[in-house]
Amino acid sequence: MTDIARAPTPQPIDLLLSARWVVPVEPAEEVLEHHAVAVDAGLIVEVLPAAVADAKYAPRERVRLPDHALLPGFVNAHTHNPMILLRGLADDLPLMTWLREHVWPVEARVMGPGFVRDGVELAIAGMLRGGTTCCSENYFFPDVQAQVYRQHGFRALVGLPIVEFPSAWAQTRDEYFDRALEVHDRYRGDALVSTSFAPHAPYTVADAAFERIRTLADQLDLPVHLHLMETAQEVEDSKREHGVRPLQRLQKLGLVNDRLIAVHMTQVTDSEIATCAEAGVSVVHCPESNLKLASGFCPAEKIRRAGVNLALGTDGCASNNDLDMFGELRTAALLAKGVAGDASAFAAAFALQAATLNGARALGLGERIGSITAGKRADLAAVNLDAVETRPLYNVISQLVYAASRRQVSDVWIDGKRKLAAGELVDFDLAGVLDKAHRWRDRIAGTRCTPMS
Amino acid sequence: MTDIARAPTPQPIDLLLSARWVVPVEPAEEVLEHHAVAVDAGLIVEVLPAAVADAKYAPRERVRLPDHALLPGFVNAHTHNPMILLRGLADDLPLMTWLREHVWPVEARVMGPGFVRDGVELAIAGMLRGGTTCCSENYFFPDVQAQVYRQHGFRALVGLPIVEFPSAWAQTRDEYFDRALEVHDRYRGDALVSTSFAPHAPYTVADAAFERIRTLADQLDLPVHLHLMETAQEVEDSKREHGVRPLQRLQKLGLVNDRLIAVHMTQVTDSEIATCAEAGVSVVHCPESNLKLASGFCPAEKIRRAGVNLALGTDGCASNNDLDMFGELRTAALLAKGVAGDASAFAAAFALQAATLNGARALGLGERIGSITAGKRADLAAVNLDAVETRPLYNVISQLVYAASRRQVSDVWIDGKRKLAAGELVDFDLAGVLDKAHRWRDRIAGTRCTPMS
Repeated sequence: MTDIARAPTPQPIDLLLSARWVVPVEPAEEVLEHHAVAVDAGLIVEVLPAAVADAKYAPRERVRLPDHALLPGFVNAHTHNPMILLRGLADDLPLMTWLREHVWPVEARVMGPGFVRDGVELAIAGMLRGGTTCCSENYFFPDVQAQVYRQHGFRALVGLPIVEFPSAWAQTRDEYFDRALEVHDRYRGDALVSTSFAPHAPYTVADAAFERIRTLADQLDLPVHLHLMETAQEVEDSKREHGVRPLQRLQKLGLVNDRLIAVHMTQVTDSEIATCAEAGVSVVHCPESNLKLASGFCPAEKIRRAGVNLALGTDGCASNNDLDMFGELRTAALLAKGVAGDASAFAAAFALQAATLNGARALGLGERIGSITAGKRADLAAVNLDAVETRPLYNVISQLVYAASRRQVSDVWIDGKRKLAAGELVDFDLAGVLDKAHRWRDRIAGTRCTPMS
Repeated sequence: MTDIARAPTPQPIDLLLSARWVVPVEPAEEVLEHHAVAVDAGLIVEVLPAAVADAKYAPRERVRLPDHALLPGFVNAHTHNPMILLRGLADDLPLMTWLREHVWPVEARVMGPGFVRDGVELAIAGMLRGGTTCCSENYFFPDVQAQVYRQHGFRALVGLPIVEFPSAWAQTRDEYFDRALEVHDRYRGDALVSTSFAPHAPYTVADAAFERIRTLADQLDLPVHLHLMETAQEVEDSKREHGVRPLQRLQKLGLVNDRLIAVHMTQVTDSEIATCAEAGVSVVHCPESNLKLASGFCPAEKIRRAGVNLALGTDGCASNNDLDMFGELRTAALLAKGVAGDASAFAAAFALQAATLNGARALGLGERIGSITAGKRADLAAVNLDAVETRPLYNVISQLVYAASRRQVSDVWIDGKRKLAAGELVDFDLAGVLDKAHRWRDRIAGTRCTPMS
């Protein structure tokens, strides 16, 4: 017998996805045609041409995405997801009227573990349907949030709230810290849920609490997720009360470093942008919330050019009113051009990176998720581009950013597990979740709403 | 025998739509629950409680919309629909690079009756799927556009282009006018297609042509649809070349009156807004195009407050890149708040009015369409609000403006005829239209694109 060349035995893996286009985000602007993503034990093993993958791997499950772009799942870097239950309760109002006369009185009535659980579940349904696989959460009852995210296999950075007023979650500053540390301990090392400190804002947190946060964040290696310079009023108040702008105050307190996730930043100056770049601060831009609340225009293109890590967030549904990262990245790309007065600003590929990889980096998860890269966890979203709205097609990334919509997301995986299949949620009691949302609506509106059908 | 009260014989009509909510737009903010719209011979006969309608009418067709809001169809008041075939061809470029190096060279190669026909058909598919029932068109070959719109039963105001450079449509100024008048004559009195003069812009049309337009528009009773003060450069150029700002030049030429549809207006001053209000000019705001091309910020809230009729348009797909009126009205509402620095600016009900009734008024069709009112033509769109993304529901108009998306449009009627049924186009060769779009893509990109699936 003569020796013959033998094909090596195909390697068994959990999952092989072959897509018309793979958009790995890293490197930026790359679009791989007819490529496959090999996944095993929740990990991206390899990204390779589909034809090569077919010979090399023996997957237990194979998914073909013939008209689709496969992307890293979106990272929504700033949410208050339980507030989804207040979606559209009050709109078109000045910020303080909205908060004082609508949001806060309602929250005082209803906020608790049930409200948080039911809100987060509804938010997860919406996020999955829109291709979002990770969020940075910022609300009361982080213990409940963490439990719900874990139960649904959804990746989250859960903020541990610190604020100087009592709430249903904690009464005193000490209690806020005690409960924060409890939640942190419980989820230490969890595969999907991690925690950050979430002091609400410079104007609702005292220096003493910030100092304690700095010490603990350093010891525990946690990000600090904070609303910062959202409005001009905040800057004026800080100057009057503390003699300095909010960022300077945080600098004095030792918080301006690469742990800081600074959300909004509509009032940031050029020199403050330079400070953030040097210190490794991440900025989360929430363009739709900033517009809707008339908070000001974040100079997103300047921040990008300075090399600051710029991520995107929807903010809560009470001020957006959705969790649509497709909408948010499109608004970010459009608005940045208008604000910069430059049509070439904040190009499509950057918008996609801001909504994925930069979000992951802001959350301290840049090594684990945010791009389709061997060695990262398999958090993926497939977008079907075979639709009237995305034809003709010249440029996949342009189409994703400027023409596609959340409803074209067909399939989603988190940590290698399928969460959305052909547009349908997997293992999710959607009817039950919607029914609970409806009950909250009746309770909050204080009226019986006749059933929708 | 004794007299008995008899129910009157039910009145036969073509169509009875009963919806969970009817949002007539006129009066503003009104939401009618469990109401019906009775339609006969393409006309809205009556809007009345559903239970009453059931006894009063004997419809040949009955449609129940149990989870839906029924709206007037959107009026997209500024489009260049054939350019849909260039969607995403070139993005993120300065305006003049985009035009000179991409759009114009391609148009010079491909523009003609075939390009216009195939582009308009694809646009009609997208518009219907997004709830748009009427558009104001602005491109070459209005004869072809008019024919395609009529063939598909789509309502359109077709612009008769006038510009000082030769094109495949016309070579000289005289030829532009001759062909314009031919098209106007052919569609005079048409039920669906009407015409406007569409001089491109102050910087591409000479005074002599504007004078001729004024005379003819008065004689023929036609609107004049014009890009106006889109950029700061345009204003500077006008001052240098004509000694006055563009609006002043048009005033001297007698064109600033209630026929004028002024598109963009990013550079309009307070006193010019007052002039427009007094003269009855309609302004078409295209917020996404203005952002994407970094043209400037139209002071939409100031224009609204001055009592100017403010409509909305997507502009062409080459600079948007969609025909999504849900997206456009949401962006308009958000951006106006940011620009005005006032979260209560451009409230949801006004955004809906701008996208419907004000568009109809701008096009000179305010008596025929734009609201759900007895006596108007039945141009209607149903939006299914029973979706994860629009729950819970406190306020129907807020939900439509801030949370719903075009993909929730289920059914559309134009002139009483069904054009979209449960999300599917009616009597429309979608596969054929998409195939043609694909062929244009290959020809324009100059490469063979492997089939999508």
